[in-house]
Amino acid sequence: MAETSLIFPAQEYRRRIGALQAEMEQGGHDALILTSPADVFYVTGFLTRFWESPARPWFLLIPRAGDPVAVIPAIGADLMGRTWITDIRTWDAPDPVDDGVSLLAESLATMVPANGAIGLPMGLETHLRMPLGDYLRLADRLAPRRMTNATAVVQRVREIKSEAEIDKIRAICSIASDTFDNVHDFARGGEPLDRVFRAFQAMLLDHGADWVSYVAGGAGPGGYGDVISPADARPLASGDILMLDTGAVKDGYFCDFDRNYAIGPAPDDARRAHAALHAATEDALAQLRPGMLARDAHRILTEGLRKRGAQPGGGRLGHGLGLTLTEWPSFTPKDTTELRAGMVLTLEPGAEIAPGRILVHEENIVLRDSGPELLSRRAPADLPELPA
Amino acid sequence: MAETSLIFPAQEYRRRIGALQAEMEQGGHDALILTSPADVFYVTGFLTRFWESPARPWFLLIPRAGDPVAVIPAIGADLMGRTWITDIRTWDAPDPVDDGVSLLAESLATMVPANGAIGLPMGLETHLRMPLGDYLRLADRLAPRRMTNATAVVQRVREIKSEAEIDKIRAICSIASDTFDNVHDFARGGEPLDRVFRAFQAMLLDHGADWVSYVAGGAGPGGYGDVISPADARPLASGDILMLDTGAVKDGYFCDFDRNYAIGPAPDDARRAHAALHAATEDALAQLRPGMLARDAHRILTEGLRKRGAQPGGGRLGHGLGLTLTEWPSFTPKDTTELRAGMVLTLEPGAEIAPGRILVHEENIVLRDSGPELLSRRAPADLPELPA
Repeated sequence: MAETSLIFPAQEYRRRIGALQAEMEQGGHDALILTSPADVFYVTGFLTRFWESPARPWFLLIPRAGDPVAVIPAIGADLMGRTWITDIRTWDAPDPVDDGVSLLAESLATMVPANGAIGLPMGLETHLRMPLGDYLRLADRLAPRRMTNATAVVQRVREIKSEAEIDKIRAICSIASDTFDNVHDFARGGEPLDRVFRAFQAMLLDHGADWVSYVAGGAGPGGYGDVISPADARPLASGDILMLDTGAVKDGYFCDFDRNYAIGPAPDDARRAHAALHAATEDALAQLRPGMLARDAHRILTEGLRKRGAQPGGGRLGHGLGLTLTEWPSFTPKDTTELRAGMVLTLEPGAEIAPGRILVHEENIVLRDSGPELLSRRAPADLPELPA
Repeated sequence: MAETSLIFPAQEYRRRIGALQAEMEQGGHDALILTSPADVFYVTGFLTRFWESPARPWFLLIPRAGDPVAVIPAIGADLMGRTWITDIRTWDAPDPVDDGVSLLAESLATMVPANGAIGLPMGLETHLRMPLGDYLRLADRLAPRRMTNATAVVQRVREIKSEAEIDKIRAICSIASDTFDNVHDFARGGEPLDRVFRAFQAMLLDHGADWVSYVAGGAGPGGYGDVISPADARPLASGDILMLDTGAVKDGYFCDFDRNYAIGPAPDDARRAHAALHAATEDALAQLRPGMLARDAHRILTEGLRKRGAQPGGGRLGHGLGLTLTEWPSFTPKDTTELRAGMVLTLEPGAEIAPGRILVHEENIVLRDSGPELLSRRAPADLPELPA
């Protein structure tokens, strides 16, 4: 297992640490505390589904210069020891009296001068994956050191994917594309939606996904109601539009896109909405460039829908993608994040056909200097039909 | 979909709210903020895999008396509207300027007097699923109201499962048991471990799991090294011990247990270790009673191993189970949580056969007044053999 637990060569992680340290310098942070599965994986290659257990916190410390320090539960020492990280400090977790706080405080006190700043991601789209009470105790123990907002440090670095990362996302997109091309194997009129969801996940695994962290979708006459509900047991019926959406994972990297299917002949309004979504996505594929802002992508997609007579759905129309199902930025009218070459993004326009009846269409891209390069296999312009 | 999104009748949720409010009264909390998927699901029935996206926070507020209030992203209004919750307040998330903080602060300011206490889970095994910066802003805006530690409120109520919940856990345990009984369909000598992991997940889905949130395991000559690593592509070989462990999910409830298999004839020391693990588990099944402490379970399992000549592995030897893969308490020497009837627990003794070579054995139970009732189908006493 020694080699596989690295995912990438050590130099890839060293490059990432260097980039984070450059941003830390810029932001005035003397150390960085990372606690989330994606952030820890990003700098170490430590990949495990064990994060599913909320019992134990895990800490990865990055000093302003030099190598990172892992402060982790003893149960993870073996796996972390097979990554490129060499300074690994452990405690027996869970410990109801002191669940790593003292070890973490000591490690940081040595790393950061008393007048120093300790950065953590604490902004939009971040969570602190440790008990809040322990964080407050830690901040107290480390005073007069300040706890500072290092959201930008992590986001500026993680949002630009290396070619090695892009290859990983392309691989899982290809697995999902193969699966979407074979939905006719398990979805047709009469088949209950919950069985379709199960078979969809099984086929993703069969095509090579390591695991399937996200499946959503919907089905209803001429469109579906929302895109986050679990599946019920209602059988698919003629005239339904079925949507399947997945965040499957390979080597720790996600895809996130969906496909729509008509059960039998599609109602005209659904066919028109699908064509408008496809065409608006073509606009974005043609026009998006580095230097634009996230809100420009929203504008392009919204205008693309309107000029084809479709009513844009609410919410964001795309987002970042990579180590989690969704990453910043968000394609909303309010997000002014600059789009840069190397960002992996989703284009996700939605159209409202009637109240409570929507269609959502999604592709995954990497933004190049010359514009978007597709990572998902492009959806057909015409809504495909499954047997009723 | 209207009915299925509830999972349980509304009265089950009303009972839970009542129990939480009784504990809030006891702890002096005037309101409770819940942010985690499990806590929100517990009181509402709001079940979605959309939590996989870290982009948006979700809030469920429980006043000291009266019905809960959901403060959530607009994208969830439809699904939350199909639960028993009627007071649903939404904002357009993600919003880089104010991601629900004002709406949340206003809702809490009305609910809690200026000298009041607002409780949140902030202790062991909890995470605050919102940006830390937003939490600090919220606490500022709500002052002089105090933010208080309500970990015990949630844990005291959630740790006792209703019969309806036990039925759900029994159902997913049965699905996993059926799958473990058919591992010979996909695991044998020559088969790479990563393909075994994929086929295992697909079979869990085929047997009726809604999704598979956790799969771990290991394989190695006469035992495995750790239990949290992802699978590599090494083919299973004669003399290997294969372990598969899963947290599969049905209707929002988890199982969490494993099974061991020998590839061809098992080495004697592995067979002896398996028999010792099985016998130590029998001791716990016979002896555990309400009123004992979590550390007593650790002692029973440890002594059970020692008296059969096995070396107990480190770490905890079992834990709570239900809405997440692992819940409190922990079977460690330090955990003094009282075991109570209605707790669903795992018994998870591990034995070290040689340095770097362990065996772990796990069952799921519900603790009754008369002792443990198995929810997983009991593992065979003799290590089962798969074709080499």
